[in-house]
Amino acid sequence: MLENISSKQIKKMTLPQLTSLCEEVRQMIISTVYKNGGHLSSNLGAVELTVAMHYVFDFPEDKVVFDVGHQCYTHKLLSDRYGSFNTIRKKGGISGFPKREESVYDCYNTGHAGTSVSAALGIAKARDINNKNFNVIAVIGDGSFNNGLVYEAFNSLRLLNTRILVILNDNGMSIAPTVGSIHEYLEVLSASDEHKAKKEKHANIFERFGFAYDGVYDGNDLAVMIEKLTAVKEKLKTQSVILHIFSKKGKGYSFCEENPEATHGISISSSDSISKEYSEVLGEKLTKLAEKDERIVAVTAAMTTSLGLSGFFEKFPERSIDVGICEEHATILCAAMATENLKPYYAVYSTFLQRSFDEIIIDICSQNLPVTLCIDRAGISGSDGETHQGVFDLSFLNPIPNLTIAVPKDLKEFSDMLEFSTKFNAPLAIRYPREGKRIFKSFSPIVYGKWEEMTLLTGKAVLIACGEHPVTLAIYAAQMLESEGITARVINARFVKPLDTELLNNIKEQYIVTVEDNMLIGGFGSLINNFFAGKNKIIKNFAYKDSFIPQGGRCELMEDFGLSCKAIADYIKNAIR
Amino acid sequence: MLENISSKQIKKMTLPQLTSLCEEVRQMIISTVYKNGGHLSSNLGAVELTVAMHYVFDFPEDKVVFDVGHQCYTHKLLSDRYGSFNTIRKKGGISGFPKREESVYDCYNTGHAGTSVSAALGIAKARDINNKNFNVIAVIGDGSFNNGLVYEAFNSLRLLNTRILVILNDNGMSIAPTVGSIHEYLEVLSASDEHKAKKEKHANIFERFGFAYDGVYDGNDLAVMIEKLTAVKEKLKTQSVILHIFSKKGKGYSFCEENPEATHGISISSSDSISKEYSEVLGEKLTKLAEKDERIVAVTAAMTTSLGLSGFFEKFPERSIDVGICEEHATILCAAMATENLKPYYAVYSTFLQRSFDEIIIDICSQNLPVTLCIDRAGISGSDGETHQGVFDLSFLNPIPNLTIAVPKDLKEFSDMLEFSTKFNAPLAIRYPREGKRIFKSFSPIVYGKWEEMTLLTGKAVLIACGEHPVTLAIYAAQMLESEGITARVINARFVKPLDTELLNNIKEQYIVTVEDNMLIGGFGSLINNFFAGKNKIIKNFAYKDSFIPQGGRCELMEDFGLSCKAIADYIKNAIR
Repeated sequence: MLENISSKQIKKMTLPQLTSLCEEVRQMIISTVYKNGGHLSSNLGAVELTVAMHYVFDFPEDKVVFDVGHQCYTHKLLSDRYGSFNTIRKKGGISGFPKREESVYDCYNTGHAGTSVSAALGIAKARDINNKNFNVIAVIGDGSFNNGLVYEAFNSLRLLNTRILVILNDNGMSIAPTVGSIHEYLEVLSASDEHKAKKEKHANIFERFGFAYDGVYDGNDLAVMIEKLTAVKEKLKTQSVILHIFSKKGKGYSFCEENPEATHGISISSSDSISKEYSEVLGEKLTKLAEKDERIVAVTAAMTTSLGLSGFFEKFPERSIDVGICEEHATILCAAMATENLKPYYAVYSTFLQRSFDEIIIDICSQNLPVTLCIDRAGISGSDGETHQGVFDLSFLNPIPNLTIAVPKDLKEFSDMLEFSTKFNAPLAIRYPREGKRIFKSFSPIVYGKWEEMTLLTGKAVLIACGEHPVTLAIYAAQMLESEGITARVINARFVKPLDTELLNNIKEQYIVTVEDNMLIGGFGSLINNFFAGKNKIIKNFAYKDSFIPQGGRCELMEDFGLSCKAIADYIKNAIR
Repeated sequence: MLENISSKQIKKMTLPQLTSLCEEVRQMIISTVYKNGGHLSSNLGAVELTVAMHYVFDFPEDKVVFDVGHQCYTHKLLSDRYGSFNTIRKKGGISGFPKREESVYDCYNTGHAGTSVSAALGIAKARDINNKNFNVIAVIGDGSFNNGLVYEAFNSLRLLNTRILVILNDNGMSIAPTVGSIHEYLEVLSASDEHKAKKEKHANIFERFGFAYDGVYDGNDLAVMIEKLTAVKEKLKTQSVILHIFSKKGKGYSFCEENPEATHGISISSSDSISKEYSEVLGEKLTKLAEKDERIVAVTAAMTTSLGLSGFFEKFPERSIDVGICEEHATILCAAMATENLKPYYAVYSTFLQRSFDEIIIDICSQNLPVTLCIDRAGISGSDGETHQGVFDLSFLNPIPNLTIAVPKDLKEFSDMLEFSTKFNAPLAIRYPREGKRIFKSFSPIVYGKWEEMTLLTGKAVLIACGEHPVTLAIYAAQMLESEGITARVINARFVKPLDTELLNNIKEQYIVTVEDNMLIGGFGSLINNFFAGKNKIIKNFAYKDSFIPQGGRCELMEDFGLSCKAIADYIKNAIR
């Protein structure tokens, strides 16, 4: 049935037909996610809600913004993307997140938490200015609800004098269980008999913001969802509404229902076997260090397990803080704790660190406080696409004074850098990819601002690389060149900031090649170009050019976007000849 | 009396003595701010509160974090800085904001809104971990209260299981009158008879977050403040407290009381006469453009007047949005409105745009939406110091794909760029300083990605500058060189991104000098270095080196940090010889 369906046809279906449609959607999501990877349990929880939305509302004239986008698969299946659904998250395929470029049914791209209410308000305000008439819906989970952006958007609802529907899809989990007072408050509302909370005067903060509050309903009961959405659609003509539903994460698939955190996102192993993830090293090493150093505190924003810190959190609960999806707050907490002689480690994905940019400048670095940023998923992170690549971090961190930036070449070096960090009394960022595959034979102790020679031969060219994948590419390139009789030296630039100026000043080679998995603009290579500006060197930078990097496998994307050992070797061959 | 007082002595004073101390403090603030510039009315409103805090609490053992810092002058006068108070905001003098480097009485540096509650929580949590015992206070105005960070911090209070005191100093104004539902809610609380709101069950959202709420009290009544703080200090032993006070912005100085917005910050004219501010051009031109183009919408985050947009807001209220101090939300609103074919202009100070970094990448640029960022106070902004310099914007904007960056050389060019922007259908950033002093004789129409030759002579060196002050320096330098028989060409790099590659490829000169009022790392000069990497040119970048730039006059700081026409001319003279 799903195969031939369009959003418009759903409106003509009977409840039994819709119920069986839900079942079909659910099976399709499960089988596809187990093939392609992706967000499973969050999507399973939102099937009935989405089918009901398509039954009641008129897409694409009406607009829906999915917060983060972890709940949009059913919407995709019901809106022209059944045929391409098997390509989801694959290179060249459809995205795992809402994408305007893909379909008129996707009105706003999301990926980072908390943006949906702001976006819905902007679309609704534009509708009013344009004298148009359609409905705007934001679908947001309780995890995103912690983010300050949601509060900023709520705060301006009356001010904007417009109307939206917010569907709060509450499943008690973001990726990990949701934390914080707002979530406890949602539980209070959920626990109320016969939606009593709603009736108590002043009982509901959402009404303060100008919403009519309606809840809590079973989000997995299709008939209830259709009934409520129909009523809400009518009410929406005169007022903004918040519809609070409770849905079961992983609904309809018992393994997911029982393991919602583990099945939030499913990863598919690439053909290369992964020896270990950097996050594991973070967890093990930081736990060991914290046994000896009582100043060490670990802070996360809702990603404790993925960052490898579950063990640390269990062992040192009093020195572990997960604030939920509140990256800015987490950053300031670290700075403030550092003023009181603690040693805070803020672990975060590269892409989400973008939210803390101002706080890294003002709170951490302008105060020169010894906070360590542990930046995971740096470089190309893969199948999540444009919104999740960790390719900007070196560019936005490099210009910040007082910040030291370290990039390990392998898991062992990462461990050594963590050891180094405990004695380092200033702001420090360590950025690393998700997976590590090799431990290099060469290693030398970490010395502040000093690089490591990976090969000692001096020839006509020197390759300077930072990070495991770039150093690996540089070494392969050097080996390829060696087989053709060209000697190229390889240097591991452990510190992107400060540069090892002594080593740089002693470079005899005429040709310098930089390799990094970051944007060219503002990245490591740019620092090298700055250093050698006006000096007589021929420099070539291997880094990502000025475009957004879509979804795909890490290795294939690195190659597509110019980072391959062959490209490096070819450049040097041609340049030297 | 103030002259010889220490924080410890205040505790021994009688109420009449304290009252006259307040009067003395107030006079000192007024006379100093009229000499040095600074934040006047906000500081006048907080005199009694601060004296009472010093009477009741034990600083520096107890800690106070002032949100933004616009209320900290009394605290400075009472804590070891009476003698240096006349140097406030001057080069080498004490800061107009809290500064740890200055005094043990300042425990956390602030400058941007909404950080105080997070910082106080971090300090309190560290206190608990360290088994110490002192009080931690956050003083926050109602304007900052709109910021999402405050909500993120509140949300984690129970989670962190610690105790802080939040003093909500409510004066109904941030800089402009405070907007939004939270502020309306504060008014509801303020209007309650005999603090009734507090007693109503569920009436108070702060209690939801785990605070004991106490308010609303007259913040300018010293006796009441002492009484309340004494009680609160006791309560704080077992629970976090929010003390809601109402104070009069500009209290005790009738001109301020009547003109709180105009006297929020007092600027002191520099010796150079300023012909016009860029903000005035923004206001006039955008209003004109909006008369013809109904798609144009203006968005601000609590700075409408300073950004020059009061006239626009009056003329087009339905196309004007001030969301309060919610920079991230403002950015997303613009992106969302652009999806519905509007033409949004987000006007903001350079330093505050840092808060929107993630949203510029994800919401505006990855969706390639035609939002125009009007970035005021770019470059060195002056007396506010480290936290307010606009010297990072080119660095953090340059790496973002799909973004065009324009930098006008004067007010006329700025106006032309705004005209250009209406037909430009992609993300655009225009960055400009506060004041403009000259209109250059040469001008040519704005063409996408094309630069302007300011002088036509070709010699041995070419100076490429972006922005009014850098172009001015370059022209002066060229004139100095001319008088010594050296010809240097000057180019106005109107677009920092994309570079005018055609022009760059045709440069015959061996020596290239770049001039910009931004950090060297990641800035305009770095783009030029990237472009010429490996090519046979000798390049020198004039830009700010890798350190925070403290307070001072713009001209003197530019010179101190390496940007002067003499330094440029000297470099070229020496290089060419």
